[in-house]
This record gives sequence, C-alpha cells and structure tokens, in this order.
Amino acid sequence: MFNRVDKLLIELPNLEYGDANAASVVQELLGGKFGEMSTLNNYMYQSFNFRGKTKLKPFYDLVASITAEEFGHVELVSNTINLLYKGTGFSGDPDLAPLQDAKNMRNTYAFIANAQTSLAGDSMGNPWRGDYVFSSGNLVLDLLHNFFLECGARTHKMRVYEMTEHPTAREMIGYLLVRGGTHIIAYAKALEMATGVDVTKMLPIPNLDNRAFDHARKYEDLGYGNVLFTWNNVGDYKDIDKIWKGQNPTSGDRLFVKEGSPKGYKIPELESLPEEFAPGIGPEEFQAIAKRLMSKI
Amino acid sequence: MFNRVDKLLIELPNLEYGDANAASVVQELLGGKFGEMSTLNNYMYQSFNFRGKTKLKPFYDLVASITAEEFGHVELVSNTINLLYKGTGFSGDPDLAPLQDAKNMRNTYAFIANAQTSLAGDSMGNPWRGDYVFSSGNLVLDLLHNFFLECGARTHKMRVYEMTEHPTAREMIGYLLVRGGTHIIAYAKALEMATGVDVTKMLPIPNLDNRAFDHARKYEDLGYGNVLFTWNNVGDYKDIDKIWKGQNPTSGDRLFVKEGSPKGYKIPELESLPEEFAPGIGPEEFQAIAKRLMSKI
Amino acid sequence: MFNRVDKLLIELPNLEYGDANAASVVQELLGGKFGEMSTLNNYMYQSFNFRGKTKLKPFYDLVASITAEEFGHVELVSNTINLLYKGTGFSGDPDLAPLQDAKNMRNTYAFIANAQTSLAGDSMGNPWRGDYVFSSGNLVLDLLHNFFLECGARTHKMRVYEMTEHPTAREMIGYLLVRGGTHIIAYAKALEMATGVDVTKMLPIPNLDNRAFDHARKYEDLGYGNVLFTWNNVGDYKDIDKIWKGQNPTSGDRLFVKEGSPKGYKIPELESLPEEFAPGIGPEEFQAIAKRLMSKI
Amino acid sequence: MFNRVDKLLIELPNLEYGDANAASVVQELLGGKFGEMSTLNNYMYQSFNFRGKTKLKPFYDLVASITAEEFGHVELVSNTINLLYKGTGFSGDPDLAPLQDAKNMRNTYAFIANAQTSLAGDSMGNPWRGDYVFSSGNLVLDLLHNFFLECGARTHKMRVYEMTEHPTAREMIGYLLVRGGTHIIAYAKALEMATGVDVTKMLPIPNLDNRAFDHARKYEDLGYGNVLFTWNNVGDYKDIDKIWKGQNPTSGDRLFVKEGSPKGYKIPELESLPEEFAPGIGPEEFQAIAKRLMSKI
Amino acid sequence: MFNRVDKLLIELPNLEYGDANAASVVQELLGGKFGEMSTLNNYMYQSFNFRGKTKLKPFYDLVASITAEEFGHVELVSNTINLLYKGTGFSGDPDLAPLQDAKNMRNTYAFIANAQTSLAGDSMGNPWRGDYVFSSGNLVLDLLHNFFLECGARTHKMRVYEMTEHPTAREMIGYLLVRGGTHIIAYAKALEMATGVDVTKMLPIPNLDNRAFDHARKYEDLGYGNVLFTWNNVGDYKDIDKIWKGQNPTSGDRLFVKEGSPKGYKIPELESLPEEFAPGIGPEEFQAIAKRLMSKI
Amino acid sequence: MFNRVDKLLIELPNLEYGDANAASVVQELLGGKFGEMSTLNNYMYQSFNFRGKTKLKPFYDLVASITAEEFGHVELVSNTINLLYKGTGFSGDPDLAPLQDAKNMRNTYAFIANAQTSLAGDSMGNPWRGDYVFSSGNLVLDLLHNFFLECGARTHKMRVYEMTEHPTAREMIGYLLVRGGTHIIAYAKALEMATGVDVTKMLPIPNLDNRAFDHARKYEDLGYGNVLFTWNNVGDYKDIDKIWKGQNPTSGDRLFVKEGSPKGYKIPELESLPEEFAPGIGPEEFQAIAKRLMSKI
Repeated sequence: MFNRVDKLLIELPNLEYGDANAASVVQELLGGKFGEMSTLNNYMYQSFNFRGKTKLKPFYDLVASITAEEFGHVELVSNTINLLYKGTGFSGDPDLAPLQDAKNMRNTYAFIANAQTSLAGDSMGNPWRGDYVFSSGNLVLDLLHNFFLECGARTHKMRVYEMTEHPTAREMIGYLLVRGGTHIIAYAKALEMATGVDVTKMLPIPNLDNRAFDHARKYEDLGYGNVLFTWNNVGDYKDIDKIWKGQNPTSGDRLFVKEGSPKGYKIPELESLPEEFAPGIGPEEFQAIAKRLMSKI
Repeated sequence: MFNRVDKLLIELPNLEYGDANAASVVQELLGGKFGEMSTLNNYMYQSFNFRGKTKLKPFYDLVASITAEEFGHVELVSNTINLLYKGTGFSGDPDLAPLQDAKNMRNTYAFIANAQTSLAGDSMGNPWRGDYVFSSGNLVLDLLHNFFLECGARTHKMRVYEMTEHPTAREMIGYLLVRGGTHIIAYAKALEMATGVDVTKMLPIPNLDNRAFDHARKYEDLGYGNVLFTWNNVGDYKDIDKIWKGQNPTSGDRLFVKEGSPKGYKIPELESLPEEFAPGIGPEEFQAIAKRLMSKI
Repeated sequence: MFNRVDKLLIELPNLEYGDANAASVVQELLGGKFGEMSTLNNYMYQSFNFRGKTKLKPFYDLVASITAEEFGHVELVSNTINLLYKGTGFSGDPDLAPLQDAKNMRNTYAFIANAQTSLAGDSMGNPWRGDYVFSSGNLVLDLLHNFFLECGARTHKMRVYEMTEHPTAREMIGYLLVRGGTHIIAYAKALEMATGVDVTKMLPIPNLDNRAFDHARKYEDLGYGNVLFTWNNVGDYKDIDKIWKGQNPTSGDRLFVKEGSPKGYKIPELESLPEEFAPGIGPEEFQAIAKRLMSKI
Repeated sequence: MFNRVDKLLIELPNLEYGDANAASVVQELLGGKFGEMSTLNNYMYQSFNFRGKTKLKPFYDLVASITAEEFGHVELVSNTINLLYKGTGFSGDPDLAPLQDAKNMRNTYAFIANAQTSLAGDSMGNPWRGDYVFSSGNLVLDLLHNFFLECGARTHKMRVYEMTEHPTAREMIGYLLVRGGTHIIAYAKALEMATGVDVTKMLPIPNLDNRAFDHARKYEDLGYGNVLFTWNNVGDYKDIDKIWKGQNPTSGDRLFVKEGSPKGYKIPELESLPEEFAPGIGPEEFQAIAKRLMSKI
Repeated sequence: MFNRVDKLLIELPNLEYGDANAASVVQELLGGKFGEMSTLNNYMYQSFNFRGKTKLKPFYDLVASITAEEFGHVELVSNTINLLYKGTGFSGDPDLAPLQDAKNMRNTYAFIANAQTSLAGDSMGNPWRGDYVFSSGNLVLDLLHNFFLECGARTHKMRVYEMTEHPTAREMIGYLLVRGGTHIIAYAKALEMATGVDVTKMLPIPNLDNRAFDHARKYEDLGYGNVLFTWNNVGDYKDIDKIWKGQNPTSGDRLFVKEGSPKGYKIPELESLPEEFAPGIGPEEFQAIAKRLMSKI
Repeated sequence: MFNRVDKLLIELPNLEYGDANAASVVQELLGGKFGEMSTLNNYMYQSFNFRGKTKLKPFYDLVASITAEEFGHVELVSNTINLLYKGTGFSGDPDLAPLQDAKNMRNTYAFIANAQTSLAGDSMGNPWRGDYVFSSGNLVLDLLHNFFLECGARTHKMRVYEMTEHPTAREMIGYLLVRGGTHIIAYAKALEMATGVDVTKMLPIPNLDNRAFDHARKYEDLGYGNVLFTWNNVGDYKDIDKIWKGQNPTSGDRLFVKEGSPKGYKIPELESLPEEFAPGIGPEEFQAIAKRLMSKI
C-alpha cells in the first residue's frame, strides 16, 4: 500500500517564463526509457514479484523503499515540465490564435491533448511502455540491471542539464543527480552484498563528479547524497541499513538511514489557462460549484 | 510524495495450485487499457497537472487521493497474478524440461522474462502504454473521462471474473468491484458537483449489481462500498468530503470519509523457483551473503 | 463523401456454433498488414492524396471506387468474425464462470473488451496501424504497391482458408478471393496503362487458381470475377472502363463495368449475450427505453 | 455496404500558400486518438458488432449512419492537410535541393513518404492505431464512450483552431465544430433514451460556444447544427428520428432529420509536384498513357 | 563491410517432426529484447558509432568483431525455428484444410505470413524494435550494458532450454550458451580493462554452470568456450587479444584468439510446402525457369 | 556466417560542420520502413527462410549475397549520420549548456541517448520494426515485394537528396542510388526469370535518371551500376550470374558479376565529445587502461 503526502521533494523555482522546447526534452527524464517512470515501475514490479522476501529481506526492503522515492521523482519531473510550459501562449479570442507559437514547438501533444502539462512519454512524443520494466526474478541479474539503469539515467540527466539554462529544469536535475547517485551506490552495495564484487570502483559513470554541476553541488554540500529514507513511519523497510552502510565511495562520507521521508515543500500552483479551457471553470460556474460543494446532503 | 506500507489491501487466498492461463487473462486488469496501471497513471498525472489546485481543492483532493489507492490496486492484482502462476513448472535438471508446460501457455513472457510473475502488460502480452493516460486539464472533461474509464474497468473485471473459477482471482476481483464501485460513484458525484447533472442514475454500468458476484457480496456487506480514505495521516486531501457525501446511489447507505488508510494484510511470500533461477541464491551463496549483510563496515 | 446501405455483400451462413480460434485467425484478414483495413485505407488515402485527378481521371476513378468496395469487405470480414464467436460461452450466473472456455482461446481481447466481436487488429492481437498505408503520390509506384498488396492479401486469404473448415469463414474467403482477384487484375491493367508492361502474365500469385477452392469456384462460375462496380449512382467514377476492359487474363472472359453497387443481402443479427452484458438491456429497461423512444417531444 | 460520391462536404479555401507546420498539427485531427479516423472506426466497428440491431434499431441506426458522415470528415481533414502543404518546396534540379525547407519542418514523413499529403497518423508522426477503437457491446457503455470521445474531439479541434490562422484549416475546423456538435448532442440524446439521464445539461464541453469561433458561427447561423442526415437514399437508418428529436440544447432550435446526404462541393485539385515525382508523369508518358487508355481492346 | 559464407555455425539435428509451439518460444531468442537480433544490432550500432576507434582500438575491435559472430547466431536461431515448424501441416487440397492445426498454435504469423519460418519478432509475436539498441557512446556504460545484456540473454536461453525437449532447439541453445558465455567474459574483461573492476567474479549469472545442460557440456568439452575469432581474414580486429587474454574465469582454461572464422556446416534444406505455396514453383514452371536461367543473353 | 572487413564502401567527405536536422532526415534512409535496415533484414530473413535453396539456387544466391551488401549500406548511412552531427555542440562546463542548440533540433534521442550518432530509427524518431520484414516463402511474391521495396527505397533517397545540400549526405545518397539501382534491376531480372515478364521496362521508378543527381552521375560513369559482387571469396553465390546477365536496361551496358567484394575505404574517425561523455575516457584513465591492455596475464 502507498500513502500520499501533498508535498514536493524540493522547492522548484517558479519563473515568469518557461521554455516549451526545454519542457519537451525534459520529458525524456520522465517518460523515456531511462526516465523516472522507468525507475519507478522497475522497482515497483520487482518488489511485487520478489521471491524470498523474508530470507532476503534487506534486498527486498531496498527495492521496495526506493520505489516510494521514485514516485516523488516522477512527481518532481512532472511539476518541472508544467512550469516550463509557462508563457508559451496568451489569453485571447480563439480567432487571435492564442496558441500560434505552439505550432512550431517540438511537442504538440502538450498543447493539443494536455493543456501545457506533462505526458507519460519521452522527448520525441513516444509513450512510456510497460516493456521497459525488467523483472527477471534472479536477484543478481535484477540488481545488475538496476545498477546499469541508474547509470544510464544519470547519463541522460547530465546531457539534458547541458541542453537548457532554465533554472527550474536545472534545479530539478541537480537534485536528482544527487538522489539518483544514492540509488547507484545503493544498487552497487547490494550487488557487492550479493556477489562480493565491489562495483563502486567504476563510479562515477560517466566519469564526471556531480559537483561539476552548479545545481547539484548545493545538494551534495547539504549531504543529500549520504542518506536513504525508508519512506515509511511504522518500521517497515528498516533492513536497508544492512546494505546502506559504510562510506560513500565518492565523498568518503558516512552513509546513514533515516526512517520516514523528508518533510517536503509546497507543490507549485498551476494557473488557469483560458486558451486551453483548463480548468475551464468561469466565475459563474464556480459560484454554482461552490454552492453545491458546500451543500449538506 | 508517497510513502509505502508493507501491507496488502486484503488477504489473498494462497492455494497450492494456480492456473497459468487465468494469470494471463488477469493481466488485462493490470496492464490493459482499462487495467489498474491505467487508473493509477491517469489520476496520478491528472493530479500533477491539475490547474487551480487551491480554488478547486475538493476535486484535486479527490483525484490525488484516489491515486494513492490505485497503487494498492496495482499491487493487489500483481500479487494475484504471482499466486496464479504457482505450480506450472517443477524443479529438476534442465534436461528434464521442468518448464515444458509453459510452452503451451498463453503468456510466455511470464516464463522466459519474469520467472512466473506479473508484467506491466495486458492479456495478449502487449505492454501498458503511457498514451493510455488522459489529462486534458479541462475539469469537466477529465471527470467525464474518469467516470467512463471506471465503468469500462468495471466491465472488464466482471468479464474476467466469469473466465476463471480460481479463488485467488475471484477474491481480488470481488474486492476491486466494490472499491472500483466507490470510484465510479466518486467521479459521478464530482461530475454532479461540477455540472449539476446527476449521472449516478445511469448506474450500475453494466446493469448488474456487485452483489451478483459471490466474492463481491461479502465486501458490500461489510460496507466497503461506502467509504473513501484520504490515504494520508497529516490532514491532506480531507476536502474529498465536500464531494463524497450523501447516499450511496446503489444501496442508499450513508457515504463517509476516513482519514488515513486501511490497516492491510500480510503480503504473500513467493517461494524460490530453482527452475527459473529465481532468486537463484543457493545455500552456500546465502551463507556468504548473510555474513556480508551482518558485517559492520 | 460516402453513403451507407444496410446490406452485406453476400449471404453469410449463420450456424449454431462458431469456432473462437478460427475467429482469431480470420482477424488477420481484417486488421493484419494485408487485411481489408489495409486495402481500404491504402486506397482511401491514395484517393484523397491523388495529384492530377482530372488529367489522370481513369486512375483516380479506379482507386476511388475500389475504396468503396473495400468498406464492404471490411464489413464482411467483421461480420464473419462475429458469427465465428457464436457458442463459446453460455448464459449463467457469474459464479458459474460462463466464459471459462475463453481463458484458453487465442484472442482474449474479443472476450474481455469486445463481447465476442471483431477488433481492428490481427491474428496475434496487434492493432492495425496507420503506417500500413502507402501513399507515395507517384502513380506508377502506388500502382505497383497496390498490385503487390493485393497479391499478398490473396496469399493470406488462401492460407487462412486452409486453416479452418468452418463454412462461414470459407464462404467469406471464397467470395473475397474472387473479388480480390478483380482488384489484382485492375491494378495490373492500370500498371499496364501507365507503363506498357503487362504484369497479368505473372498471375495468379500464388500459382493456384481460385477454382481450386470450393467456396470460390461458385462465385467464379457466377462471373463475379469479371465486373467492377462504380459504387456510385450519379455517374462518378465511370472512367474506370478505360482501364477495366478487354479480357480477364485468367478466364478469358470479357470484363465489364456496372454503374452502382450490387444489391446486397441481409446483415446477420447478433443475439444478446447476457454473460457479456451485451447489449445489457433487460426487459424492464427495454420497456422504459421503448417509451422514451416513442415519446413526442 | 458503402457508396461513394465524388464531392467534399464544404468548399475549402484554396490559397496560394499553405503552412507545413500547420498541416502537421492538423494531422492530430485526422489520425490522433481523438481524430476523425477514431470517430469513423469507433462507430464503424460498433455498428458491425451491434447486438440487437432490430430490437434497438434507433440506436443502431444512429451509430451506423454517423459512421457514413465520419468518412466525409476524414476526407475533409485529409484534403485540408493537402492544401496546407502547398508552396513548401519549389520545382528545380535535385541538386538545387528543392525540398530544403522540409528538413526543418515538423513532419518529415509528409515530404519523404507522402509527397506533401496527409498521413494516417497524428501531429507527432505516430500512426493511428486500431486499439483506439472501443466496442464493448454494452449499449450504455458504448454510448457513454462516444459522448466522451466527441467531447474530447471537440476540445482538440478548439485547440488546433487556436494554433493556426490559416483560412483553410479554420474553415474546416469551424465546420467540424458544428457537425461534431451534432454528434455530441446525438449521443447525449441516445444516452438519455437509454438511461433517462439528460447529459446535455453538461454542454458545451469545454464551456465555450461554437459561436466564439468565427468560422463556426457561419455554419451555426445556417442551421447546420440542427440536422442529422441518414446518408442513405433507400430508407435505411430512418429511425434516428426516434432519438434525434426535440430541441437543440444549445440554441433551442428544432432538431430534424433529412434523408440522404448533403449535396457537396468540388474536391480541390492537387497539382503535380515534380520535385516529389508526384504523380511523376511527364508529357511524353502522358501521351502514351492517353493512347492506351483510349484504345479499344 | 561484411562478407557472407554459405555455412552454418554448427550441424543442426534435422528431425522428421518439429514442434510448432517450441518454435514460437524459440522466437524469443531471435527477436525478443534479449534475443540475437538485439545482441547483433547493439554491437553493430556501437561499432558504427564508436568514438576514438584508433585510440581505443582493442575495445573497438572487440565490439566490431563480435558483431560478425552475432550474424551467425541470428542465422542459427532462424534455421532452428524453421526446422521446428516441420510437420505441422500436410499437403492436400485447400478444402481438406491442410493447415487446420495451425489455428490452435501460438504464433499464427508463422503460418499466415511466413510459410512456417522464422520472424523478426518474439515469443508473443511482437516485432523486434530498433529501440532495443543501446549506444550511449560512453565506453564504460556501453560495456556495462553489454555485460548486462549478455547475462539477460543467457537467462532467457536457459529458460527456453527448459521449455522444450526437442533436440534441434536444445542443440542450438547448448551451443549458444557456450558462445554467449564467451561474450559475457569478453565484456567482463573489457570492463576490467576500462575500470579495473573484475566483474567475472559474479559469474555465472544465473548461478548454474553451462555444464548442467547436456547440449552445452559437449561444446564446453571441445573448448568452444575459450576462443574468440576475429571473423576477418586480412588482419583486422586482431587487437581483441589485448582484452581476450588470461584465464577463463569458469574453467581456468587459457583464452586464445583465432584469426578468421570457424569452418561451418551445411545449411539445412527447407522442403517445398505446397500447402503454403512456398516456394510455389510447380514442375512446369520450373522447366520454364530453368530454361530462362540457362539462356545466354 | 558473415565475416567483417574494417572498410567503408566509399570515401565519405568529412567536413568541419555537419547539419543536425539533415542527420535527422537521413535517419529515414537508415531505420525507416524503406531504409537500409529494411532491405538488409528483408533479404537476410528471406535467405534464411528460403525453401528449395538447391533447386532454385540462382535465386537463393541472389537474395543471400545482396544481404551482405546491405550490411555495408547500413554501415554507410550510419557513418554519414555520424558525420552530419559534427559541430552541433561545443565543449565546456555543463553550466555553460554546451548542448543548448540540441534542444531545438528535430531528433533529441541523438543527443540524449546516442551522443550524436545514428539510431536504429527513422526521421521522426520511431524505431525500426521487425514487422517491416516480408518473407512469404512464395518465390514470385517475395521477388515482387523486393522489386517494389527497392523502388520505394529509391524514391525516399531521391527526396532526401533534395532536402539537403550537405556534401556528405549527397555523396552517400548518390552512391546508394546507383547501387540500389543494381538491386532494382536484379530483382526485376529475377522476376523475369521466374515469370517471363520483363518489368525492367517500367524503370526508372520514379521516372528520373540517376544521372540527374550530380553525386550519382559520377558513380554511373564509373560503371558501378553494372556489377554485382558475390561478397564471398570461396565460391559461394556464384550462380547469381544466371540472373545478372544481359544488358543494363537503363544504359545498355553489359552486366557482369565479380567474385568477392570491393576493396573499400577508411572508416572515418569520430572524435571524442567531452560534452557527451563519449567515450568519456580522460588522459589519466587512458594511461591506466593502456597499462592494463598491455599487461601480460
């Protein structure tokens, strides 16, 4: 089971103007093969399908608890995209063509189908697919996959970072480089526990420190790269500390586990867009709605 | 953000033998166009992309909190499928062809790729796709979609129920018919709040009461069909009681909101399957692993 | 523009029992790459996209008018599939599992999604795709494509014929072998008109006469293989007689054009299937509906 | 069966210059999930698969006859796209790169595969898919789907209208907003007949009158929004008047049924494009072709 | 550039009868995500896209030369599938339904489209997709991917081996387990060269020796697991010996490189199948063809 | 079996600057439905699946040997794309956004996933699919398909040529127009051998001589259009001279067969791209790597 908290993992810069084509490339980090939808669903299904949950509890706890964090990552990338669409159109009569700029943007679904918000698809508009999930049931192979997947995801984040100067995109990527970094180490440590082979010595892949990215350095300095949360308040998943222990191979810092989840920040408001008919509730209808909502039945 | 609890929504019957072809049709309820992956992701994206979260808070709260429940539904169907694969193969030397029966089963991915567990795909092996998500941003249209989606999902559940006599499958479907029923009513009520039109009078769609299904009747009798949870313990999403109020259109019972989430049941263990190399950890390796896990670093 | 007539091209045998797996293979002839959806849409788009409609009118008329016939072919295959699903389930309480046999049938979409009727997909459940349409705009290349497409479609029909003994399937295929044969000749003749090369000498492809199929022989004997209709009653598309002239290369018969369309036969009724909730209208609801339909407003 | 008439539903403005990126977004209205290919095929398959055609004739007649109109809509959008590609390239030697501008346009298939004409795909180049068809066999559910589908299609049309100022695109959309509007009302009325619930009170969805669009207002003024045709000349489908009766919920006008179809307008000619080798028939070849076409055999 | 030799890598048992459903599961090893089409195309594209071919020549040589071997693997699996379809149908008049058994087999494309031969698709009939290719350009990440891919491919082979007792399938899989094993080691060694981390200590993944499979043991005994070929006769790709050196981590045997390629075996003949019209050349046509082939022009 | 030679078919111009959008349209010639991946895989599978290899040896030899050439074509187009991406980004700190231009280019996968190199996909980013392979087993139908496929491929090449002035793209296309021309003639001749019908009289399709393209004329003058290679050095596939004989229908030149393959040219080096972390090996790591590579074990 999952509970939900109405908070976002970080405070996203909310600027006056976005950048629609930046939004379209950030989609790769959401619905691409190495996007957050993939990390989320890979770990979710692996946790459902795990054989030997009791006997191999630390491994199960790891995959299961990271799943919960990945939901927050999906939420974060989605919110970033939403902010990046700000200011592409204008309000006005349909015959003024208030969405005229959208015609030349890269992702037209965002304008025609989604009212300038995020999609479960990638930077070329292709949908995320369930066959991006790898769940072989073999512990070592699944961990090896996850280690590879996280390194691939890191590579994509680094490249998208280099494609846009927009502060909202960069803040999100900076943060996720650091948190994704913990997952790379976590799966590397799990692989070491399972096989005795220390693959952390390959890191970082690609060979560039998170600190080379301004927006990641801040979070590294705050020590965000050393902690794993259990994402649970009643004692589940605590055995991740059997794996998440010792030193951070990059910084040499001590790794530690925190029960529960971070406190979180306010989720940005998305303004009404009359030219997209979203949410499409005028003042009059709002009155009627408010009355119905307030009514006792 | 999401938190995770290591519990399943109901207690699933865990029989000695499953039914591999039943598992393959139950996949439609997981990764099909009208499966739980679709309800989950539709509401998740709609909640991320919601315009006017503050002004239209009861609607936002509804979509956002149901998202959390849907995760639990995905988990439940996935666990059901896993139990339904029990007993298809046998343990033995590779040259005895311990997976020989699998060759004639409907879903071969489950045996070759997933070690007899669930996939993010449907009853014909096609992957769930991100373009099954509808998120127009227009409040009325999104609610209308959700109402339709839930009715479609109910229809598929009813038909799959009729395709198998396996108690694990039926118990899961019985429960989800009832809980899905609350979502149908919830979106119907939301639509009424938004437009003044009462579509609950169309229900049930299809025109057969949940009580016609043995495994659903039990949950109806327990009143599971009258409650919505907030799936949150710190006061978020409480405004769903502005929408979820009055009477259950089917039973005439009083509807009520409960803060938090149900307590849940133990998640079934999945045994080791040596013929699938899952988890593929022999006694010797387990010793070494246990030692590494217990070591202080 | 298109008009519709409530008739089917031939009289389909309507037996007590169908054959669900036969239905699933017949789907290849409907929504497969070489199915009727493909011939329909290829010619439809080519007719919309035709450059030089006036100057090259006989060619345009040919592609445009055959489009209309292809709609009737889609309708015929669809109706065949619907009849082939007869008798797979039984009526009864959901807990009797009235659809239990469906679990082991090849196409589960037909039972879960479509209530035992046809789908816009193929024999493996994959959907028909718009990129099966070829429309290059180059007259010779489009005709060459169409000639190839029809030969491929013929091959698939011949093989599916050999896969089932069900009279409904065979009657439909027998008829379509003959009518498809006219389209092969038509595009061959058009290619000859456009290039001077007579490709009818390659025919038949594969090298087996339609008369080798019992259910095709009948239609050949009736001369169905020598006529093209204009599928129009106000004089459009008559210039197909500039191309459809001379002899049938197989039989040596005279080819001729008929204005209008054949008279057609009654479309089979599909009975109510309570276990599929289709149409799901009980006697009581029917009463209410009838009253509303009859009301003056 | 279907007949074809060589006419277009309206007179499309045929300007000197199109707008290739406008063409690419208009594709969403043709081959997108909510495009005309979807409405066409949904109703076509539902009419083929209808259970209880006789008993529920007014509903069958409605779905069956609207199918015919949708063909005309597909034809209209396709022709619009073709006109929108005008003037993107120029004629000239291949080494002058006459298609050089195409390289930077959004839809390259249109230039490489289709010679600047329409595709059975959407605004991102993804093909239309057969699994966009919903055909559950349950009357109420299918009608609810169709009502939702039409509202979604309307939303997409409204947004694409706002994305381009090109008169050809707008004229087409203006007309289709009005005709699509009749289908929304038709399915709403059918739903009322079937369930007693009047959903027309939700309309319009989105909440903006067709009259807010200059190119739609004209057709509304002409009363195009109050009529349904039977698209048949021999008395089929007349029972739609059991459903299509009473008042237009938007205008209060009287609804009426017309047997047959509208008279239609000339289909625009598409000029030869030598740089696309379309149709690729030079003067010399044309001579030879003409001779062959005129020959008696 | 590639040259081709008309030989197969091993001698495949050619039995009287195949097993059509075994053929359909073997397809996973050909066109599945972890099939030979994937290893082939991954290495092919990585070799084309390699940055620093000169400086990192041993790595380039490795990826480039293994590509050539993978073609042979694709050929081998394809031939195996072809032999596995033997004996499914019978010869006879179409009206005897000589392909009647095919209707109930898992892969109908093989009968309708491919005349009982292999497809570029997987065990559920889904096509191989170009996005299965991973080619990041980052040396370490690509090698890590390849190591993972080969381990995944091994797992699938082991499971398919257990699904069928047919000697042709097993012989092919036995051989490929051994040869695939060399590729696992090769990428492990390359990864060690690139990063210093020895991942061979994780092997085998899954943790079962090739020798546990009768048909693999033979090839292990012959030392097939210790050699890499250059697949070239003019001295290219020889630098693979900078990586392929030292000991086989499993057996402790000495690894060695052989210039050129193995000598190969006769490719099995596929008999004519009249009921599939393949090749569809009767005695008469053959006469005419032979004459034309022999003619001097 | 296949061998590999480290050479490219022609010398590709290697300019300082490429053109990223030109690269994206050239992708159509690689991974599009009519791209080189399609010709390669069609002939490869047809050669694997060929029935009657001995009896119909000249046809088998033709399809089998052309397969080998197609690999070289895939390699050539891939290398062209790689050169066309030159100069899109710049080297620099991630926070300088060295990939900022990529955000507005057509194919973002090339930057995020592939480090500015080729993909197994088309000009809209859609992956190449295994169901582009046609392999019916019927000799005449397969040859007809191949003839059509090659004409379609030629059309796409001609159009892409007209879309870019970049010399690398044009040189590649010029060469492939000529070599593709030999394949068109080869399949035409094979079709004549098989059926007696001479389809070369339709050529060229489209009706424009290769000599109208500057970069093709050169290769025509060199006689590249008259030769077929066997792509084998030990006497295989020589019977293609039973088909490839007589005159080139376009030029009237004598056709001839050459055993073996052309000598080939140096494959272009691809420089390191630090901003893509490709290959991502800094000077220090390179030292360590070199040492390991040189070590004796």
